[in-house]
Amino acid sequence: MRFVQPEPSTTGPLHRQALAVLEAALEAADPAQAVRRALRRDGDTLFVGDRSYTLRQFRRILVVGAGKATAPMARAVEDLLADRLTAGTITVKYGYTTPTRVIAVREAGHPIPDEAGVAATQAIVNLLRDVTADDLVLCLISGGGSALMPLPVPGVSLSDLQALTEALLRSGAPIQALNTVRKHLSQVAGGQLARLAYPATVVALIVSDVVGSPLDVIASGPTVADESTFEQAWQVLERYGVLEYTSAAIRQHLQRGLSGEIPDTPKPGDPALTRVHNVIVTDNAHAAAAAVDRATALGFNTLLLTTYLEGEAREIGRVLAALAREIAWRGHPLPPPACLIAGGETTVTVRGHGKGGRNQEVALSAALAIQGLPGMLIASLATDGTDGPTDAAGGLVDGLTIARGQERGADALAALRDNDAYHFLERAGALLITGPTNTNVNDLLAVFVGTAAQS
Amino acid sequence: MRFVQPEPSTTGPLHRQALAVLEAALEAADPAQAVRRALRRDGDTLFVGDRSYTLRQFRRILVVGAGKATAPMARAVEDLLADRLTAGTITVKYGYTTPTRVIAVREAGHPIPDEAGVAATQAIVNLLRDVTADDLVLCLISGGGSALMPLPVPGVSLSDLQALTEALLRSGAPIQALNTVRKHLSQVAGGQLARLAYPATVVALIVSDVVGSPLDVIASGPTVADESTFEQAWQVLERYGVLEYTSAAIRQHLQRGLSGEIPDTPKPGDPALTRVHNVIVTDNAHAAAAAVDRATALGFNTLLLTTYLEGEAREIGRVLAALAREIAWRGHPLPPPACLIAGGETTVTVRGHGKGGRNQEVALSAALAIQGLPGMLIASLATDGTDGPTDAAGGLVDGLTIARGQERGADALAALRDNDAYHFLERAGALLITGPTNTNVNDLLAVFVGTAAQS
Repeated sequence: MRFVQPEPSTTGPLHRQALAVLEAALEAADPAQAVRRALRRDGDTLFVGDRSYTLRQFRRILVVGAGKATAPMARAVEDLLADRLTAGTITVKYGYTTPTRVIAVREAGHPIPDEAGVAATQAIVNLLRDVTADDLVLCLISGGGSALMPLPVPGVSLSDLQALTEALLRSGAPIQALNTVRKHLSQVAGGQLARLAYPATVVALIVSDVVGSPLDVIASGPTVADESTFEQAWQVLERYGVLEYTSAAIRQHLQRGLSGEIPDTPKPGDPALTRVHNVIVTDNAHAAAAAVDRATALGFNTLLLTTYLEGEAREIGRVLAALAREIAWRGHPLPPPACLIAGGETTVTVRGHGKGGRNQEVALSAALAIQGLPGMLIASLATDGTDGPTDAAGGLVDGLTIARGQERGADALAALRDNDAYHFLERAGALLITGPTNTNVNDLLAVFVGTAAQS
Repeated sequence: MRFVQPEPSTTGPLHRQALAVLEAALEAADPAQAVRRALRRDGDTLFVGDRSYTLRQFRRILVVGAGKATAPMARAVEDLLADRLTAGTITVKYGYTTPTRVIAVREAGHPIPDEAGVAATQAIVNLLRDVTADDLVLCLISGGGSALMPLPVPGVSLSDLQALTEALLRSGAPIQALNTVRKHLSQVAGGQLARLAYPATVVALIVSDVVGSPLDVIASGPTVADESTFEQAWQVLERYGVLEYTSAAIRQHLQRGLSGEIPDTPKPGDPALTRVHNVIVTDNAHAAAAAVDRATALGFNTLLLTTYLEGEAREIGRVLAALAREIAWRGHPLPPPACLIAGGETTVTVRGHGKGGRNQEVALSAALAIQGLPGMLIASLATDGTDGPTDAAGGLVDGLTIARGQERGADALAALRDNDAYHFLERAGALLITGPTNTNVNDLLAVFVGTAAQS
């Protein structure tokens, strides 16, 4: 992974060091490398985290899964287990496929699910149909896995689901309420894929694109216990007044669930989950830890602040600038050379008509707040390489960024007002451009304050 | 200083410890105590920071100054130097007076300056009229000092100044531009008080209410070099198109400055400034350091994050929550029991019609973001004891705050939407109430994460 931008403002090593720290984070987020780190094989023994499996005890090894990053994950599994794989099928977004040998890679719609996704998920269900306790099922999960595994319960169509989802969003239902309903109208979400794989041994390898990596949320938690109930799903429809937007098939299914005629999603302790081992192979915390390690190796005094960062991008940019000032001027929380790492995902309340993304807006706002100050760099990076609807991944700014953009005819305050960070940072040579990274573990933000010799 | 609120949610010591940390910050911000720490006397020797003065070398010791916190500062000076004080006059906001023996305390208008302020400042000028190199002038400065020392240049009236200020604000001029103009229409701002005190020795004791404590900004820097020029002041009037709102006397004065007929404000290296010693006796950094010390003494792993924190209050609340989660769940940047301290001043973009203040909004937003989570406390405190137009100083919230407020009939999300944090936190027993503290060193924000035993 190399950055094709940005221009350094100064000749010292700080700028290069900052890029090296971001590169370390992206390497740690790479899904194929993450699978290679999480799975080790020694002849007939497969090590997964702190557990190990004797491969010859398994009659068959099957691979299933879905998510934008699962094609490189499947390749890594094939490299390790090719001689033992029986069959597999995974689903990726259109255009995200990779050549494989044993595992079929099917393409489907994302973020709006489509019938190709339904057919691909049906293929997963078919593959798992006759599993026994002698089988091992490797389940590959990454961001986008929910939309790419859209198998509604019998009688309910994708368009029924879509209409209900839109009605709930219009009614102001929070995402948790939406997920409760969706899990109870899916054949795989909310632990139900694990039930389909029962009684096989299941190892789920997960790349998390959700802040904090809650297992039951990533890709709607197909291999994880679901705390929500049919009763709660029905209450959501009532509370948000969307029963009239609900097809008869949906209402019938939920009513059957309420009456106990069909089982609820697997709860904690459910037998179907006792043979499941969920492993987060990489996530924001892995990427942040790698950034911390690289910065430390480069000689920075380094702290990981949080991997739960959320909030309005332009305000987060000001917070990063406040941290940089304190380091530079008062030596807190660490003296220079210092690096602070944070992870999470910011948001932008769009008020203007410009081009940009949350990380670019963080960077532009931070640049305004450290304008003219020497020895500081602030970065904000989308680990999927795509920040908003742009070809940039974020921005890397310093005390000269604003002056350079203005000299070249751009107006920083106007750009921030118009959500037009892309054009300002482009002009200032401060865009981070990586190209698609084939992964997504949210965003990495970093503050660097160098010594006089570094910057 | 004792907090009359809030209710603890749990029986462990964490809540009490958090209040003790905030109390330590308020003690460090107390202006009288700050003067007592900064000035020490040993017989005929006066120690101020790293300098010392032999008192008998001075024929007279005069005290001047202005600011909301200067009455207790004057009392502290009298306690130390009563036998040697010649005379003094300071200006405080109406109602902020304190009995003194030698130093006259005059009251005037704040934040809108009035003629009482003009007369009080004239009294300062009169007192300094015949100073010699044998005199010591102690200058007491705190927040509000600019409005409380409103002495326009001859021929310009307060209402001329007010009209110009309003025109500039309407035209979108930033505060720096406004200050450049005001310093060039004042007889005391921008280092000119030091010029009036020349050739006496001047020791300025300063309580900073400005984030980052820039000496040239606090109370418009009456004893500090001013980098801005008559030329820049004139350019501001032209750029923001407000010349038509400018009285003839103002234009005439600025033109005389442009032509060199009258001297510009003292620049760095000006002889009038060589005999000035500016000492920040307390500010946000002092208060934050005291909070860090107290937390450390109580056994917390403690970090000072920044004293430059600025940003939209509700977003800062989410950042504090993200920090608390990382500590509790992953042990970064420090393992529990941990305390993170930040200082600065947030802002609220008012969109609703409720009652609240920036610190209360930080607290409410943080409470929503840690809802249901055990072992965390988040505080946001206005050190002047008055957060927004309320009788509260801020809020102290935990994972039960939202549930408690809701049980008592308040709606947290609605309160946040309506900028009505006061009523929610009041209901939840989560207001911090100190009464007026007679100081202002901006805001203190803190995150506490306890061990299981503490909370």
